[in-house]
Amino acid sequence: MWKEYLKDIIPYKPGKPIEEVKRELGLKRVIKLASNESPKGPSPKVVEAITAEAGNVNRYPDGGCFYLREAIARKLSIPEDRIVFGNGSDEIIVMAIRACVKPGDEVVVADPTFMIYHIVSMVEGATVRKVPLRNYKYDLDGMLKEINKKTKVVFIANPDNPTGSYVTSEELNSFIDKVPRDVLIFIDEAYYEFAAGGDYPQTLNLVNRTDRNIIIARTFSKAYALAGLRVGYGIARADVADVINKVREPFNINSIAQVAAVAALKDEKYMAESVGLINSEKDKFYEFFKSVGVEYVPSKTNFILINTKRDSMKIFEFLLKRGVIIREMSGWGFKGFVRVNIGLPEENEIFFTAFKEALGEIK
Amino acid sequence: MWKEYLKDIIPYKPGKPIEEVKRELGLKRVIKLASNESPKGPSPKVVEAITAEAGNVNRYPDGGCFYLREAIARKLSIPEDRIVFGNGSDEIIVMAIRACVKPGDEVVVADPTFMIYHIVSMVEGATVRKVPLRNYKYDLDGMLKEINKKTKVVFIANPDNPTGSYVTSEELNSFIDKVPRDVLIFIDEAYYEFAAGGDYPQTLNLVNRTDRNIIIARTFSKAYALAGLRVGYGIARADVADVINKVREPFNINSIAQVAAVAALKDEKYMAESVGLINSEKDKFYEFFKSVGVEYVPSKTNFILINTKRDSMKIFEFLLKRGVIIREMSGWGFKGFVRVNIGLPEENEIFFTAFKEALGEIK
Repeated sequence: MWKEYLKDIIPYKPGKPIEEVKRELGLKRVIKLASNESPKGPSPKVVEAITAEAGNVNRYPDGGCFYLREAIARKLSIPEDRIVFGNGSDEIIVMAIRACVKPGDEVVVADPTFMIYHIVSMVEGATVRKVPLRNYKYDLDGMLKEINKKTKVVFIANPDNPTGSYVTSEELNSFIDKVPRDVLIFIDEAYYEFAAGGDYPQTLNLVNRTDRNIIIARTFSKAYALAGLRVGYGIARADVADVINKVREPFNINSIAQVAAVAALKDEKYMAESVGLINSEKDKFYEFFKSVGVEYVPSKTNFILINTKRDSMKIFEFLLKRGVIIREMSGWGFKGFVRVNIGLPEENEIFFTAFKEALGEIK
Repeated sequence: MWKEYLKDIIPYKPGKPIEEVKRELGLKRVIKLASNESPKGPSPKVVEAITAEAGNVNRYPDGGCFYLREAIARKLSIPEDRIVFGNGSDEIIVMAIRACVKPGDEVVVADPTFMIYHIVSMVEGATVRKVPLRNYKYDLDGMLKEINKKTKVVFIANPDNPTGSYVTSEELNSFIDKVPRDVLIFIDEAYYEFAAGGDYPQTLNLVNRTDRNIIIARTFSKAYALAGLRVGYGIARADVADVINKVREPFNINSIAQVAAVAALKDEKYMAESVGLINSEKDKFYEFFKSVGVEYVPSKTNFILINTKRDSMKIFEFLLKRGVIIREMSGWGFKGFVRVNIGLPEENEIFFTAFKEALGEIK
């Protein structure tokens, strides 16, 4: 009865909430540096907006995200009809695939990268062509070679997760020129606010191209500190956004999320300070890793991939017992690696101490 | 590049938010009786829970909905692994279809009924077989006749939207016995709390059947007054729930929604009072419609379908100018019909006055 290609998909088995882990391990304080969340919390203006809207949740959300759409369009100086909203940028990925992928079609992704691209493509019956990273970075030439007549979508996480690396403006432009016209180019910029500047691509003008079909995905989950509320958005030519809207559920963005995101955009100063804090703390991580002789991948994001050259599951468990949760990366094919996101200064100090201890204990 | 069967889908064109409509029409007060929302608003305990959680929205939601799952399982006395969560029960529908429907497969629905069944089936390339209602009620025998070897899913909205009618326990059981084993039977009980009792089916035991595959969908959007937060859930055998979870995005239920739904379940008294209010007000609607000589369909829900025997678009516009928003139903094939949901007593009085005026003006 079920689609046969679901057989190979392992359903997500949720872990226990942190409160339960704390209770079981008898921990008083737990520091979570595992999900690339903003450690500082949401802007006070966001909290205010949520509180003000709480009594209205009996009403359906605005299906068109009128005020949020207006706010994003103004901020980015783009027309409102170029924006499509998702329940987190995860859902932008799902909708893009559902809009073009049929069983037997192909999708090109890096290996490893953000896992959702692969899983969602499998759900729709696509063959997924995986192109290994080269020196922790997307191999765009290798990806071009895997594009053929059956290819419907190519995914570029920029910056990438879990490596934190990025492709430059020049590299991306040259890649896009070589992708066939009828392939959807999905550029996932979940960590955009951490990466913007320098030779990192400015993609907003790219979507104007009528000779290519491009979707840029951004999110309020990271720099804007709204991971719990699930607000992502895609930016594309209006005709592309229209097609994505055909597969979108009309009330996919909840009402609290809409007012919170509008409030977050009104407090850009708070966001910029959060990003500034992460970037200055990131330098401390680099120094620390150098001081303990551990290899890391320089990151354009709020997290760092680390080669412990040890049993990374043991490192993970050692830290967990000390109340520090990080991500163990063998499931991504990075044997011996962990990924840690940058927390508040005091959280980072605790991580440094515990990690150094772990390196001493686990050989 | 896009799936060819998306051509026939008209993307949802959102209307303006009520605040914008008010401004444009110069209205001070607008009463919305169009979306079958709870007029009373959420429980004060829900508002409290949302306010308490507002500062934590920088963290991802619990992907497993641990506490909400526990609360629903306890309330319904079912095992936790029989529950699957959706971003509104809309998403349960989407996930059920994505789990089994491939291009060329078939889906059987009533005509008209809740539109999402049809639209989502089209997105996946299914042929949708539509079975006309008989006397405003599902024609289950007619639907059985449309089931063939290609059929993957049959949808039963019970009670139905937009008619408010329902199929009885006996009718449903007899139908299920005749549906082939390899067809997914999707029973949408969005209005369950308004309908429970009497000969309305108690479906929780049905999902135990190993000779049929059944999903029951329920929601916090209606009786629990959380439409804005998007929490629906499916109840199914654990093996069925497992497959649905394969196509689910791990963080589809936002964190504010999770705490709000848990709080709503802790205040069953508030929900029961809201439902009680709707049911007693519903009698006033019936009396009113009789007094003005208008035909209506008796409803097991919080809304009523009405045959105005007039130009229903004119009725709609007449009421809108008086600040009363109802649903015009010609798009559902109900020419001359409107649908109105039951509001607060003072809102209903305003509706009665305006509607009576409309009947006098529009012939």
